[in-house]
Amino acid sequence: MKNIIVGQSGGPTAVINGSLYGVVSEGLRQNETIRHVYGMVNGIEGFLNDRYIDMGALDEANELEFIKTTPGAYLGSCRYKLPEDLNDPVYPKLFQKLNEKEIEYFFYIGGNDSMDTVSKLSRYAAAIESNIRFIGIPKTIDNDLVETDHTPGYGSAAKYVATTVREIVTDASVYDNKKSVTIVEIMGRHAGWLTAASVLARKFEGDNPVLIYLPEVAFDQDAFLEKVKNGLETTSNLVVCISEGINNGKGTFICEFASDVGVDNFGHKMLTGSGKYLENLIKEKLGVKVRSIELNVCQRCSSTMLSGTDHEESVNAGVYGVQAAIAGETGKMISFKRHSHHPYEVSYETADVNIICNEEKPVPTEWIINDGSDISDDFIAYAAPLIQGDVDLPVKDGLPVFAYRK
Amino acid sequence: MKNIIVGQSGGPTAVINGSLYGVVSEGLRQNETIRHVYGMVNGIEGFLNDRYIDMGALDEANELEFIKTTPGAYLGSCRYKLPEDLNDPVYPKLFQKLNEKEIEYFFYIGGNDSMDTVSKLSRYAAAIESNIRFIGIPKTIDNDLVETDHTPGYGSAAKYVATTVREIVTDASVYDNKKSVTIVEIMGRHAGWLTAASVLARKFEGDNPVLIYLPEVAFDQDAFLEKVKNGLETTSNLVVCISEGINNGKGTFICEFASDVGVDNFGHKMLTGSGKYLENLIKEKLGVKVRSIELNVCQRCSSTMLSGTDHEESVNAGVYGVQAAIAGETGKMISFKRHSHHPYEVSYETADVNIICNEEKPVPTEWIINDGSDISDDFIAYAAPLIQGDVDLPVKDGLPVFAYRK
Repeated sequence: MKNIIVGQSGGPTAVINGSLYGVVSEGLRQNETIRHVYGMVNGIEGFLNDRYIDMGALDEANELEFIKTTPGAYLGSCRYKLPEDLNDPVYPKLFQKLNEKEIEYFFYIGGNDSMDTVSKLSRYAAAIESNIRFIGIPKTIDNDLVETDHTPGYGSAAKYVATTVREIVTDASVYDNKKSVTIVEIMGRHAGWLTAASVLARKFEGDNPVLIYLPEVAFDQDAFLEKVKNGLETTSNLVVCISEGINNGKGTFICEFASDVGVDNFGHKMLTGSGKYLENLIKEKLGVKVRSIELNVCQRCSSTMLSGTDHEESVNAGVYGVQAAIAGETGKMISFKRHSHHPYEVSYETADVNIICNEEKPVPTEWIINDGSDISDDFIAYAAPLIQGDVDLPVKDGLPVFAYRK
Repeated sequence: MKNIIVGQSGGPTAVINGSLYGVVSEGLRQNETIRHVYGMVNGIEGFLNDRYIDMGALDEANELEFIKTTPGAYLGSCRYKLPEDLNDPVYPKLFQKLNEKEIEYFFYIGGNDSMDTVSKLSRYAAAIESNIRFIGIPKTIDNDLVETDHTPGYGSAAKYVATTVREIVTDASVYDNKKSVTIVEIMGRHAGWLTAASVLARKFEGDNPVLIYLPEVAFDQDAFLEKVKNGLETTSNLVVCISEGINNGKGTFICEFASDVGVDNFGHKMLTGSGKYLENLIKEKLGVKVRSIELNVCQRCSSTMLSGTDHEESVNAGVYGVQAAIAGETGKMISFKRHSHHPYEVSYETADVNIICNEEKPVPTEWIINDGSDISDDFIAYAAPLIQGDVDLPVKDGLPVFAYRK
């Protein structure tokens, strides 16, 4: 009889607790092999300070069902990076704590940086011939992990973006007897997957958002102004979706063009986002009414627009992770292989975590069309299955019920 | 046999089309009295340019059911203010157009300014002894109309705010081993009803949002900093909700304190919102991690968090408006009278539109407690019934289906 420990790391998503539920429920189900399932509080950083909880007790208190649909990271997160040098004293300290608690299976739910942690720990384990197995469960709204078709968290965030942009389009068009531009700034510093999802908001050909810009293609301000000008000729209330990370292709973010202009009351530089910068640019050059909207953290924490597919896969990734570890795998991340778009079919596999932690997967440039201002049907075929289905949230007094650590 | 015309005016809400549905469906149902139901495109401004559509044709095309749950203003809106002088030539021009179309019943769905339009038109009608009856259907997320318990649009916006703040609280607390402040800026220039709804997000006593500030009480920056400092002692990740309209009690908005500091690349003043201003203030004075989030237009156009109660009442207000007009009323707004919080009971009545158009209803100051930093249980008893229940939206390909004018 051995024990499991599971942690969450990096930014939250709407379904990271779905994967936590998957690991914990499968661990508890395998009670002929597993005695305890522990959860690290605030990831590996918290565990190094002996902060962990018994997840079985939560199950007995019926909390697990609420955790399943709660956004954010129930266990708390961290941004702790393990040292590159495997001779650092933190490694023996950590393994001593793992051994004391008789941990045989270690699961870390997160993105790139979390896979780096899994990579280092599994390599250290091999070096000292430890039996502890380390498995990564993917999660990121950015969808930028290699070696997997997509990542849990992306589908729900994409559904939030597509739904919200469709709503903003209706809002923007109520004064359709006046010309206006609305710029929607969407998360994604280096990869444009989430911004690309705004194409799903279109109700008919030519509908808003008419223009979509990702960080994968160099952004040209003059060409952009020309596109906006032309767009306004056929669409009175133009909606433009941009990634926060749009850049000039030489490493300078568009928002940085505005960063050296004025300080606030306290002497701080007044940094504006890319959306705000383009709002001012259009006002100045085209003289039309413009507003910019930052979708902000709701993209990663909204619970009311969960994708049923995404949520189910997030749970399954946790379940499959436990099964893979028990079957003997280590140093792996659970990955998704897609067999068909329509009907949508995926299988769960494992991939080498050492490859994943050092790479980022951009949107293929052949999916970015019209001089970098639009998204192709290939992307729509890829993304559409990921936003399907709903999740019934527990509701009390008109609001969703969320689990929280007492 | 006479005709109806209905228009929408002012900012959109999530349920203004619910009221449109109410007016149109009741008008079409009363087909022994009513021949045609017309919709003005872009309100009275559009109607003056002969822009209107036949709503009966939409019903036959099965569009009406989709309009019912579509956010924004299906007919388009305007911000056209009729002249104070009833001798202005626009009045005979407008009445000539109404008479040409054999309009007997005129409905205008909107807030304060729309009620001003209804007031002027009904007074002009009385002066020229016209039989046309003018009825206002209330709508505003601001909930600031007098002579009614609340307004359609508020309940859904309040549900959006409460749900979203609860989600932001989970997002803000994932790094709960580090201190931070999150400021959420909520719509409401003069009335704090919507910001007050953030109190509903609390899951237990003492939960976030710990501090809530409305425009009804003068905002003191030093007292605010003291409250934030104290709050951080018991809550690591403090969430503060503020109305965009918080002010110093002497007519100066808090955001205006930052308005004279620097210009952007194009020489424009860099206006920041109140949330951004307080973010900088806390960073400077307390040195903790701070971020600010503007909830923005989603507050008024979100379709996925519609309140069932609000939506039903928005439809009923339209239905009751048609019945009141046919019964002979004019120069009135449909108003809600509450008989009981629990069980929730309201009745529909009519109120004098001339009183409504010139006044604003603030949150009662006795409901604002703890030196203006919190909201009382009396508000919770008032607001809680308004956010209850769900609305099933038509869904296609994972996204809500919205009606739009072709």
